[in-house]
Amino acid sequence: MVQFVSVENIIRLIKADGIETVIRDIAMQIECDFKRWDEFEKQPRIPSHSEKGVIELMPTSDGETYGFKYVNGHPLNEDIGMQTVTGFGVLADVRTGYPKFLSEMTILTALRTAAMSALTARYLAPENAKTMAMIGTGCQAEFQAYAFKALLGITDLRIFDIDGGAMDKFTQNLKDTDFTVTRCKNASEAVIGAQVITTCTADKKRAKILTDNMVGQGVHINAIGGDCPGKTELEKSILLKSDIFVEYPEQTWIEGEIQQLDEDHPITELWEVFTGDKDGRTSNGQITVFDSVGFAIEDFSALVYLHNRVEGTDMAEDIDLLALPKNTKNLFGLLV
Amino acid sequence: MVQFVSVENIIRLIKADGIETVIRDIAMQIECDFKRWDEFEKQPRIPSHSEKGVIELMPTSDGETYGFKYVNGHPLNEDIGMQTVTGFGVLADVRTGYPKFLSEMTILTALRTAAMSALTARYLAPENAKTMAMIGTGCQAEFQAYAFKALLGITDLRIFDIDGGAMDKFTQNLKDTDFTVTRCKNASEAVIGAQVITTCTADKKRAKILTDNMVGQGVHINAIGGDCPGKTELEKSILLKSDIFVEYPEQTWIEGEIQQLDEDHPITELWEVFTGDKDGRTSNGQITVFDSVGFAIEDFSALVYLHNRVEGTDMAEDIDLLALPKNTKNLFGLLV
Repeated sequence: MVQFVSVENIIRLIKADGIETVIRDIAMQIECDFKRWDEFEKQPRIPSHSEKGVIELMPTSDGETYGFKYVNGHPLNEDIGMQTVTGFGVLADVRTGYPKFLSEMTILTALRTAAMSALTARYLAPENAKTMAMIGTGCQAEFQAYAFKALLGITDLRIFDIDGGAMDKFTQNLKDTDFTVTRCKNASEAVIGAQVITTCTADKKRAKILTDNMVGQGVHINAIGGDCPGKTELEKSILLKSDIFVEYPEQTWIEGEIQQLDEDHPITELWEVFTGDKDGRTSNGQITVFDSVGFAIEDFSALVYLHNRVEGTDMAEDIDLLALPKNTKNLFGLLV
Repeated sequence: MVQFVSVENIIRLIKADGIETVIRDIAMQIECDFKRWDEFEKQPRIPSHSEKGVIELMPTSDGETYGFKYVNGHPLNEDIGMQTVTGFGVLADVRTGYPKFLSEMTILTALRTAAMSALTARYLAPENAKTMAMIGTGCQAEFQAYAFKALLGITDLRIFDIDGGAMDKFTQNLKDTDFTVTRCKNASEAVIGAQVITTCTADKKRAKILTDNMVGQGVHINAIGGDCPGKTELEKSILLKSDIFVEYPEQTWIEGEIQQLDEDHPITELWEVFTGDKDGRTSNGQITVFDSVGFAIEDFSALVYLHNRVEGTDMAEDIDLLALPKNTKNLFGLLV
């Protein structure tokens, strides 16, 4: 039987363990998997673009376990009361080819994206960072906030969104917590005094959420929203004065902020920072950018974490997905 | 909610409608979809090869509906009492990106492969073909038999398998039916008097299931088993004296019998035969080969057929796969 984690059960799990523990555990799994980078089969995700958005498959394998995620990105869905991003994922046994685990991944993607951001910031953000500006307070925002709290201890948040309702929602969700949330009139006001700037907007176009003048010395930029060909958030000159860190260059060149740069522009792969082979932040004045697009290994790690966590609990249900006749050659016998 | 068809429910459906009706309906859907070939996004399947087998994703889209199949091929599974091929598939709405349908596809793949074979044979087999040789009587064999009965009226089967148990199973499954099954000592004996030869073996290597001397004038060869790089079933000289028909050349050159040929060897795409733009069989003496590897559009067609068939019935279950908060920007709100 294939094990299945429903939306209801992942919510139960997060409530039981606490979101900070879940994010910390996923971050640990991602770090562990990125450190064995060479063991993974890697390829840019496989997109199917349409006028309204994109549907993607993101497969990878470490030779023992195969995983993939289905995910869509449809910015205009918001206008019709639908989610811009939904997803689900699967793990399979490489040795037999059998799928073994199916999970919702709308919530799990939000968790792993936040975990990856905060994990990366541990190597790149200035020491003792206490304040984060958040430009864009949509679906991903609270997850980012909790991840930066769990992994860096950041609790002071300066937020801006062009949609006041999104800021209301964010403030409401984080009231009666350890967070101090300051609502700002625009992005320029939000970045004042922030050591970390998270941009997380959903437009499928070249935007300038952050302009050069907003970015001072020593800041770490966590650029989440630009993750599609033609979709970016940062003014090019910010990139030119920063050190840029990426997940998987072959994919980031297609989808990330670095679409705006020449092909030979220097970038650093995060797995090499995690292993210690390359430097993260080296000076106080340095501006660092995590050009996040989301890579298949992060989904793999999140699924592996979840599978291990729910196995043997009632949060994993059996799903009747695999036809397995007793006599392996007698598939037809199931019909008789 | 996403609709889900379990193994149990697809079996119920086949028992309710009858396997010949199901195969005929799938063949009609495939023919209809192949005739609008240009509307589909097409790419060779995305494989992850390992020592023991392959795991593949097969996506396609017609601009309205997106579909993909997960499928594995692990020939050695048989030795450990497991299925060599398992699969499941998904349909999604291109406009919103939401997955809408999930189904088992181990049985559905067997049905669609058989439907595609018999559909193709309607254009390629000699008129009034009555006898089919079947080399290999594993999981796919009974499905092929019923497809050729449903679409061509073939009921006289001459079978051979190196595994006597597989022939026992086949004979047992088709006893008390309209089929006449003749068990043969070897492949040479099986092909005697047959107008159609189906080869369906599972070795992941270059095999010569059919040799040149076994193939007489006027025969149609339905070559199912060769569907992987390095996995073929026909002696090369058979291909050189035949007219070869394929699903999607970009994939068949990688996986099909034509791996053995020079890149400029003439082949015909089946969709052009179905539309009438290219000829199928043109003479009695002609030898035709369907170099079947299985293409994503066939899976798409099978899923579309199944979705239409089960919608609104109790064979489709709801599955809690999509996290859909009321306020689309408040994904986090699901956790509070």
